[in-house]
Amino acid sequence: MTNADETVAPERGNTPIAECISTISEALERHDLAKVREVAAGLENPDLADVIEELAPEQRVELIEALGADFDFEVLTEVDEKVRDQISEALPNDVLAKAVTELDSDDAAYLLESLEADDRQEILDQLPQSDRAALERNLLYPGETAGRLMQADFVAVPPFWTVGQVIDFARDTEDLPETFSEIFVVDPGFHLLGSVNISRLLRTKRDVPINTIMEADRHMILATADQEQVARQFERYGLMAVPVVDSDERLVGVVTVDDVVEVIEQEADEDAKLLAGVGDERLSDSVREIAPPRFLWLLVNVLFAMVSASIIDLFGGSIEQMVALAVLMPIIASMGGNAGTQTMTVTVRALATKELSDMNVRRVALREVTVALINGVLFACLLSALAILWFGGAGLGVVIAIAIMINLLVAAVAGMLIPLGLQRLGFDPAVASTVFVTSLTDVVGFFAFLGLATFWLL
Amino acid sequence: MTNADETVAPERGNTPIAECISTISEALERHDLAKVREVAAGLENPDLADVIEELAPEQRVELIEALGADFDFEVLTEVDEKVRDQISEALPNDVLAKAVTELDSDDAAYLLESLEADDRQEILDQLPQSDRAALERNLLYPGETAGRLMQADFVAVPPFWTVGQVIDFARDTEDLPETFSEIFVVDPGFHLLGSVNISRLLRTKRDVPINTIMEADRHMILATADQEQVARQFERYGLMAVPVVDSDERLVGVVTVDDVVEVIEQEADEDAKLLAGVGDERLSDSVREIAPPRFLWLLVNVLFAMVSASIIDLFGGSIEQMVALAVLMPIIASMGGNAGTQTMTVTVRALATKELSDMNVRRVALREVTVALINGVLFACLLSALAILWFGGAGLGVVIAIAIMINLLVAAVAGMLIPLGLQRLGFDPAVASTVFVTSLTDVVGFFAFLGLATFWLL
Repeated sequence: MTNADETVAPERGNTPIAECISTISEALERHDLAKVREVAAGLENPDLADVIEELAPEQRVELIEALGADFDFEVLTEVDEKVRDQISEALPNDVLAKAVTELDSDDAAYLLESLEADDRQEILDQLPQSDRAALERNLLYPGETAGRLMQADFVAVPPFWTVGQVIDFARDTEDLPETFSEIFVVDPGFHLLGSVNISRLLRTKRDVPINTIMEADRHMILATADQEQVARQFERYGLMAVPVVDSDERLVGVVTVDDVVEVIEQEADEDAKLLAGVGDERLSDSVREIAPPRFLWLLVNVLFAMVSASIIDLFGGSIEQMVALAVLMPIIASMGGNAGTQTMTVTVRALATKELSDMNVRRVALREVTVALINGVLFACLLSALAILWFGGAGLGVVIAIAIMINLLVAAVAGMLIPLGLQRLGFDPAVASTVFVTSLTDVVGFFAFLGLATFWLL
Repeated sequence: MTNADETVAPERGNTPIAECISTISEALERHDLAKVREVAAGLENPDLADVIEELAPEQRVELIEALGADFDFEVLTEVDEKVRDQISEALPNDVLAKAVTELDSDDAAYLLESLEADDRQEILDQLPQSDRAALERNLLYPGETAGRLMQADFVAVPPFWTVGQVIDFARDTEDLPETFSEIFVVDPGFHLLGSVNISRLLRTKRDVPINTIMEADRHMILATADQEQVARQFERYGLMAVPVVDSDERLVGVVTVDDVVEVIEQEADEDAKLLAGVGDERLSDSVREIAPPRFLWLLVNVLFAMVSASIIDLFGGSIEQMVALAVLMPIIASMGGNAGTQTMTVTVRALATKELSDMNVRRVALREVTVALINGVLFACLLSALAILWFGGAGLGVVIAIAIMINLLVAAVAGMLIPLGLQRLGFDPAVASTVFVTSLTDVVGFFAFLGLATFWLL
């Protein structure tokens, strides 16, 4: 049973996705629809999404048509944007309208939004009233907010019902979400009074009034709240489901932790990528999409590198007299860049996870400067010994020692101040911090080393 | 109601944590225990954990004693390791034993593990049999595995029970987990037959047999599986709760998505930090803890920088003749480093999220090389124009153009091959990729530029 991953494989067993793709593709060519259905039935939605992405455009539509009613349109929320656009253009609007009624409202909103305005309206017009209302509640809110992330279908009951009435309501009502973990208790104006986890409901006798077992919700989210803040709140307080309210404090939906998992992953991923100047790239993006932003990032780098080059030019005469300076100067610049990147990464991540606050910023700053001083002294000894052994002359050793200490201190201070400053100015601290920090340590490194050498040695 | 965060604040309202800390600290000094309890009652566990971390060591224990039975020991799983050690040493073992019985088994295991071996045994001996069994099941498995992450308390029923019997069992049994979302159906040997989401249970008539509504679990996790793989599976398949089985396929626990949220955040965080050489640092670490690993990372950098310096030294004569080479060479090296970091970051993240696989690695490699060629040509034009304007002489322009194209191509190839190679060798691709890539582009940049200049221009 143990496979390479040490987790137990889902039903498709150990068949690699690549194999499913070729099997399905060949079966489609042969019009062997039974085979297509058989392979697809063994796949879960994210796997089927991978298959669809790799098929040729016309085969994608053939596959969906072959699966007919067995095709879960949630799969389309998992495929790449371009693939989704291609498929939703190829499928007739009434098929899409049927798909939308079967989806959770957040997934339906996501799917609808990728359509052209007139198609979207035509599909909305075809929906039953209750589906349309929930969906429009999601569409009210812009992307990346709690209102878009939330499930607008939820179970809400009045406070005077008993546990038995709630259970009977759940048993008799067709139009409830497929799974839910909280029952919300609301007043006639849909203001939230409290909630009951259904495991609590299950364990309570039928004649108990619901308002005696409900708990006040310590956490509520405004529908306009940014999804990243929502994610932080879930993570910090270990939440499973949180009610979403509008500006009049009326219950409009519920965000569950599984909706948030993807947001958390995305945000952390984004930070790592922003630091390298490849912010919103996806692996599926084409050359045309990624080349221009990467060009811009490198261009900013060139502009800063020209500043460092001008510093070197300033001391061109010294280099002509003492070529050892040209040999050693990149070492000082690169040390500063690396040390600055260390402090900066720690700062950026601590800001992102809200660990760094006014409460501890002084302690962290003191720690970073102390580390810079300690490592500065150690590398000053090491590099001056290296310089003396390589080129002779104690003077060069002293100059490189002082230059490296200055540069590591500047790296520590800039590594903290630049992300903090960017955040205070309202930017994401991960954006462009790298280029600022490494450019500054280049300039300071070259200037300190070449400047000191020029005035003392030549 | 709207506060700055646009989410609705928990009960403590807008009182900043810093204020709670000083209020509690002052109240403890005055022995005003009523005030202490009042402020603490308004705090949720993660907030109370923050307060405890910032208090003086003796005040931490005073606070816990003041709260008495109101203190939720889950708070101790949220404080920093050193703070937890200090508190658990200061508290008597019988208080800790009582605490452990009240915790979920995964939290209890986490807490117990931080104790010294003899204290741990003494506490285990004081536990009731059922608590000890669950706890020991967690402690069986090493850290960072599913077995440690799982909740070893769960609700399991035989297949021949009806829905009504299950509900009555849940109502009448004291010793169930506080909240649960799945009922597991097992045979007498505790082998998993299927599971029922409790919202499904709630909506089904009492006389229906449970085995007619249970669903086969498409996902199971081996207790020995790595927590990162578990997290990926939850994320990919949007899972809420997954049963954990031992090597004999017996049900031993359940991992829920809220346990996984922290793992996902940690793993993404780790990648961003590993790339900068500050892998397992925490913000609360002391200077003594972070200085040595940072020193080592910088030392590796110095060793690689010496290789670049030797390349420059090799062409010392050329630099003496033409100081423009020393001015321009850092531009080429830094361009290569930045372009290489772009490709490398994309590769490292795509490997981490399992987006990059044998299926698409050729397409991605082709894309990266194409981008390098396009940007290479653009920067070749730009930099050769710059060089000619700055220093005159078309020769220098041609040399810098060729050098930058070579370096951007090498950056793209190395940015993919180095993380892929590290992974194939069994290392985390994020470790040390940066230093390898940027050192290589430094060496190649200096060598190509100075070498071409020496043979063509001098």
